[in-house]
Amino acid sequence: MKPSLSIVKIGGNIIENEKELARFMILFSQIEGHKILVHGGGKKATSMAEKMGIKTTMVKGRRITDRKSLEVAVMIYGGLVNKSIVATLQALSCNAIGLSGADAGIIEAVKRPVESVDFGFVGDIVSVHTKALLNFVQTGLVPVFCALSHDGKGQLLNTNADTIASELAIALSEEYTTTLYYCFEKPGVLSDVASDNSVISHINKQTYYSLLKEQTIADGMLPKLENCFYALDHSVHKVCIGNMQMLLPHSTTYTTLTL
Amino acid sequence: MKPSLSIVKIGGNIIENEKELARFMILFSQIEGHKILVHGGGKKATSMAEKMGIKTTMVKGRRITDRKSLEVAVMIYGGLVNKSIVATLQALSCNAIGLSGADAGIIEAVKRPVESVDFGFVGDIVSVHTKALLNFVQTGLVPVFCALSHDGKGQLLNTNADTIASELAIALSEEYTTTLYYCFEKPGVLSDVASDNSVISHINKQTYYSLLKEQTIADGMLPKLENCFYALDHSVHKVCIGNMQMLLPHSTTYTTLTL
Repeated sequence: MKPSLSIVKIGGNIIENEKELARFMILFSQIEGHKILVHGGGKKATSMAEKMGIKTTMVKGRRITDRKSLEVAVMIYGGLVNKSIVATLQALSCNAIGLSGADAGIIEAVKRPVESVDFGFVGDIVSVHTKALLNFVQTGLVPVFCALSHDGKGQLLNTNADTIASELAIALSEEYTTTLYYCFEKPGVLSDVASDNSVISHINKQTYYSLLKEQTIADGMLPKLENCFYALDHSVHKVCIGNMQMLLPHSTTYTTLTL
Repeated sequence: MKPSLSIVKIGGNIIENEKELARFMILFSQIEGHKILVHGGGKKATSMAEKMGIKTTMVKGRRITDRKSLEVAVMIYGGLVNKSIVATLQALSCNAIGLSGADAGIIEAVKRPVESVDFGFVGDIVSVHTKALLNFVQTGLVPVFCALSHDGKGQLLNTNADTIASELAIALSEEYTTTLYYCFEKPGVLSDVASDNSVISHINKQTYYSLLKEQTIADGMLPKLENCFYALDHSVHKVCIGNMQMLLPHSTTYTTLTL
């Protein structure tokens, strides 16, 4: 039997709230067995950019990563947020190592091709090189990834943290039984967006298609679920969506996704 | 015989000049065998702090690292500078991995005790934990350290890059024959500060004491040399001081220090 590996992704809302982040890190440090953390950077980068007089450009509601915005992302995600998390986890006896996708050449991406919108320095992952990463995990290190990749030609690229988490899980599923945790502010996938008591406890591919048909799932959740089923279709064992409570050993209130 | 390991430290002057840094990285990537890079951050942090409206406090001519300045150091040294170097080295087929001293718990320090001056969040190294680091080097990774350590209790600390380089070299000298390169803008230790043609090609402990007596060495060089002989006294094989040309295989114009 393959050993198990937990890949946990936390979103911007947890990172922005110091107390929530501290609470999260205690829970994360207590997860048994091999584990990896993936974090976004959220609004910290936007507020830092503002302080530095850098304007955030939006096209069709989506943020454009120009050269200056990329610099801010590298400073905040790769520097401040990543290293602060690592130092805190170290204090919790969790042997964390902070990584961008450029480190040890682990996450290779291409700059997103310009079609109707030029997103700038945004990366679409093309491959995950697992050799060094497997070595880290096997020797008891806990990789902490920020949302950056590189193109192998010297360019860092801003990369969606959800995708980094799922691509890492997929790449490591040959060696490990992987569980992917998407940790956000809601207790799970809700059948009624207005009620936190409406967590759907289990979704498989069949019920997923029914939910799509019924249009009961919130808009923002759709790409997340698509990403989850993509991971499951590519050998990831299980995906869990919920708030940080789901990391507690006996927690039951969250959504589990399987094929 | 122990395998050899080169530890190269580059100063702020190289980092601030994009062309110089690019040239340096080509030379560094061509060093044969195991290697480690240590970089400072220099004036980039100061200019970033200015942009963000953070005042740099100086006491008795020395910079104080308050909480805000530390944040800037973590963003710039640990984020922007470190990850940019890593991405560039990756493009040069050098399998770099960016690290702070908190990552994998490698460099543990204590916040400098307050005596006549409170330097703030500045770390004095107490120990180097080599287990993970040896594994990285042995598996062909090239660690790139920024000038940050941690106290093991969750606090990151600004730490002198020269000292990080020498402490890493000392800690790894049990397993490797270590050469420590201090790479700066001058071609070596000069017997006449006004002339770049006055490089002293070799200094041992005896000639070092003579030079101290004669007061021929520039003030700024004294703590550097003290640090070098400390490293040599603690099993480091050789220390070289010069500009980046010294990394060329057949270079001769630089200062070599041995016991």
